[in-house]
Amino acid sequence: MSFTELDSIYMARAIELAKQGRFTTTPNPNVGCVLVKDGHIVGEGFHQLAGQGHAEVNALAVAGDNAKGATAYVTLEPCSHYGRTPPCAEGLKAAGVSKVIAAMVDPNPAVSGRGLQILADAGIDVASGLLEQQARDLNKGFLKRMETGLPFVTCKMACSLDGKTALNNGQSKWITGPQARQDVQAFRAQSCAILSGADTVISDNAKLNVRTEELPFAMPTSLPIRQPTRVIIDSQNRLTPDLALFSIESPVIIFTTQLDNQQQWPHFVKHEVVAANKNKVDLSAVLARLAELQFNHIWLEAGATLAGAFAQQDLIDEYIVYIAPKLIGDMGKSLLNFAEVTAMGDVTQLTFTDTQIIGDDIRLTAYKAKQATHTEDKE
Amino acid sequence: MSFTELDSIYMARAIELAKQGRFTTTPNPNVGCVLVKDGHIVGEGFHQLAGQGHAEVNALAVAGDNAKGATAYVTLEPCSHYGRTPPCAEGLKAAGVSKVIAAMVDPNPAVSGRGLQILADAGIDVASGLLEQQARDLNKGFLKRMETGLPFVTCKMACSLDGKTALNNGQSKWITGPQARQDVQAFRAQSCAILSGADTVISDNAKLNVRTEELPFAMPTSLPIRQPTRVIIDSQNRLTPDLALFSIESPVIIFTTQLDNQQQWPHFVKHEVVAANKNKVDLSAVLARLAELQFNHIWLEAGATLAGAFAQQDLIDEYIVYIAPKLIGDMGKSLLNFAEVTAMGDVTQLTFTDTQIIGDDIRLTAYKAKQATHTEDKE
Repeated sequence: MSFTELDSIYMARAIELAKQGRFTTTPNPNVGCVLVKDGHIVGEGFHQLAGQGHAEVNALAVAGDNAKGATAYVTLEPCSHYGRTPPCAEGLKAAGVSKVIAAMVDPNPAVSGRGLQILADAGIDVASGLLEQQARDLNKGFLKRMETGLPFVTCKMACSLDGKTALNNGQSKWITGPQARQDVQAFRAQSCAILSGADTVISDNAKLNVRTEELPFAMPTSLPIRQPTRVIIDSQNRLTPDLALFSIESPVIIFTTQLDNQQQWPHFVKHEVVAANKNKVDLSAVLARLAELQFNHIWLEAGATLAGAFAQQDLIDEYIVYIAPKLIGDMGKSLLNFAEVTAMGDVTQLTFTDTQIIGDDIRLTAYKAKQATHTEDKE
Repeated sequence: MSFTELDSIYMARAIELAKQGRFTTTPNPNVGCVLVKDGHIVGEGFHQLAGQGHAEVNALAVAGDNAKGATAYVTLEPCSHYGRTPPCAEGLKAAGVSKVIAAMVDPNPAVSGRGLQILADAGIDVASGLLEQQARDLNKGFLKRMETGLPFVTCKMACSLDGKTALNNGQSKWITGPQARQDVQAFRAQSCAILSGADTVISDNAKLNVRTEELPFAMPTSLPIRQPTRVIIDSQNRLTPDLALFSIESPVIIFTTQLDNQQQWPHFVKHEVVAANKNKVDLSAVLARLAELQFNHIWLEAGATLAGAFAQQDLIDEYIVYIAPKLIGDMGKSLLNFAEVTAMGDVTQLTFTDTQIIGDDIRLTAYKAKQATHTEDKE
């Protein structure tokens, strides 16, 4: 089926609506829905909070009887399963819509085409694939978890123009400016978890929370701010309950290789024990466990050693690097520590997707480059 | 005097014209001129080559008798002195223009307001300061040399996303992609001199010339390509005539602390002896001498040690850094070598002015931050 320019306009509106849920829907995806009848939008909605109405339900509630004979534009295939709410495919069918256009099929194994099938079986016109890339960008974390069983990992770093994070003596306070730090707050607020290491928590006495007053915009939601879970890698059980991290009453998960029962932890702190890899927490195991716990999008904000380990193990999907207009020189601390690479061909290759001036600093965004796929014929 | 919107449009046109000279006018500034009469452009021109017609002369030649009563828009104050051509202020006066608007006063001590004065004395309306910043940007090198007796220095660097220029073993070939390398060719072609060190010339066997076939555009001039003078710092007289640099028959200046008369040099190679600073060529003295030799804009393309020395001595006006989408890790080579900085407050502070994706890489542009001016009352 081919789509018209009007179809694209309505789907773009549905995508804009979906974005309004980006601070709140986790572990659910962001979804928007627009109902159009006789050239008029008769209802629209988005998903705001897990357990509450899906986008389609909210749009149908607005449309009321006008939904009959309408076309529904949804950014993700309507669900087909009973979760905390009844299946949206059934809701659209019951409301009598005549056509459903989805930006993409839902890779959730519980849906995966069955939502569109329910509608088609009821004689409703269905189509998918309109503005699919934009729709995928709404839910990088949810889609990666559904498709691979791992969360999407964004690694945030900050350095001087010459790639240094701190002076030789460790001084690094305020390497980037206030606007860059506000920008980081906005990313934190959209992530499911903020992942860091015991080193950072101890040496910076970091809280790793979202500070509403530092957000660069008013939150587009009336809901109370959702604090991402703070996930700390602490292979050697070096964290202690007196650290600033634990002064914020909000969930913390500590990953370790072995429980240490000496400490008394606040009620919002949980421990996860995973396999060790050379005496350290196995990072792949951490990510697999976080996906099991329904974390979609991880915001990794760690030091050069932990971030370097994630990078070298190829566990980072996206890099967001703030570059400050400063020169520190070769005595400064490097951005990422990892084992020597001895051939240019073995260097980790990324793809830049964006660069922007943010206050006094510059933000670069890079994705992991697509690997050349080597498939061998099996005989 | 206030300017109208039409004035700005004509001056913007004059600035566009001026840019057509950016590959050829050195050591003269880029200048454009538009003559307007009764709401029509009756003549326009730009300066293309030292010794040939100035912008005003070229515009007057197009306008002929129509120049009488016209308004002249010039990007730089008309000259008042006899150089290789007669003074433009006299030419405009003789042609009978009724008004002259200059984007800026010429800081050249031989002009410095006298051009506008000649016109005003002849009863012609004069004004200056329209689109002055854009006009200044045309001639950063010329203006800095006229105002300070030193050339404008742009330092070009290239590194990975984590700020490394090469692997630990020195491998660095093609850290940036072909579009970034073409972009560098365009900057080289606009510079008066390409400055580097003996290390780079020897270890990369670099030619440091402009390769027309690698320019990202057709040259906007019918003139043969102008090769910037290649200026090499060689404190220890390590260069030898067999290096690739000397395979290109185009001017080279070698700065050293002491002449070594052992070598036979090609005719296009000159030596300059300057004071030593800890056994090395004094970099301030190099720049002062280059200004004396009428070099306006220096394109510094050197290794981490020489670029670091320029940076630490605060001799760089602008940084252009290409960042490749690669991760090399802390074992890689740093971008700039200089002495340890021990307090964040002492870190060199720059100001970012631009960031752009260039092919697979990102280009950042930063200027030296304006220093806080401390003036003490004299009593």
